[in-house]
Amino acid sequence: MNPRLFAFAGGDNGLWRVVENKTVAGEALADVRRLSVLNGAVPLLSGDAKWLLRGVTSNERYVTRAEKDFLVANQPRLGRPEAICAAFIPIRKTEAWWALAQDERRRILEESSKHIETGLKYLPAVARRLHHCRDLADNEPFDFLTWFEYAPSDSAAFDELVAELRATEEWTYVEREIDIRVVRDEV
Amino acid sequence: MNPRLFAFAGGDNGLWRVVENKTVAGEALADVRRLSVLNGAVPLLSGDAKWLLRGVTSNERYVTRAEKDFLVANQPRLGRPEAICAAFIPIRKTEAWWALAQDERRRILEESSKHIETGLKYLPAVARRLHHCRDLADNEPFDFLTWFEYAPSDSAAFDELVAELRATEEWTYVEREIDIRVVRDEV
Repeated sequence: MNPRLFAFAGGDNGLWRVVENKTVAGEALADVRRLSVLNGAVPLLSGDAKWLLRGVTSNERYVTRAEKDFLVANQPRLGRPEAICAAFIPIRKTEAWWALAQDERRRILEESSKHIETGLKYLPAVARRLHHCRDLADNEPFDFLTWFEYAPSDSAAFDELVAELRATEEWTYVEREIDIRVVRDEV
Repeated sequence: MNPRLFAFAGGDNGLWRVVENKTVAGEALADVRRLSVLNGAVPLLSGDAKWLLRGVTSNERYVTRAEKDFLVANQPRLGRPEAICAAFIPIRKTEAWWALAQDERRRILEESSKHIETGLKYLPAVARRLHHCRDLADNEPFDFLTWFEYAPSDSAAFDELVAELRATEEWTYVEREIDIRVVRDEV
């Protein structure tokens, strides 16, 4: 069992109720009522799930030591009681992106698009976990799955964050993007 | 089927005859007579194979555009008729390595250890393909599998190359390394 492996299952069950399923670019992902986030286990697509997407957390690919220290000091944990809103954003980048050298990708991602700096502005409101899918053994439909959690009062700020990122040079390399918003029902 | 997925099966069958199995660091890998290199398919461990290691080729994590251009212009392809010698070198790095930020890993790998520059010195003699295992869904025993092919007359040069790399700061982060040398029997 790989503790860095997570699965996102869309279907009729799960802790999170889907409130919006927006196709930002490329092919849509089937509408579902609820979303489950599973760790470690690798469930096969079960009867009620319409789709299952998997990814692993991994080492950072772009952040410098200074950026990492700031992130570690300021990023909130997942599972905060007040963070009952979440966004699940699967993304696929173009072959042209993956053919770039490391210094070219870093320049576009940060020096041009300020991806890391923009994310830092929304700390500690928005918690985030990034999952990589591109190097799994199976062909995967997405390269990354990002999971964000925030309080209802930070919803507008989160919308600003994704709008800022989508206006960047980096996003010209995004060929498929789905933005699924979910809410955790209070118990 | 993922065309970037490769499997290395050690057992009694396969194109490549094992001539040496050296444990450079950490736990040994069982001795086998022959090695198969498989693409795409994900075979389960079959009766005669003692081990099966998998990895995917991926985008470069450290090379700059200038280094990439030089590599592309000078690296030979795999499968050259004269390159009947090969080395299969699985490596695992420490948790301390993976906890470093991107700029720290690049500094150690290249500015300090000259990993890329050293490899370039041995072009076009040595062909190489790097496979990543750390972000597969299953827990893998290694982080990387590297496959090298060269002619018998370049064997001594290849030994120099690996000795140079093993003397670097980067290699202080290697906690397991196996060096398996194989020969392709002429047909």
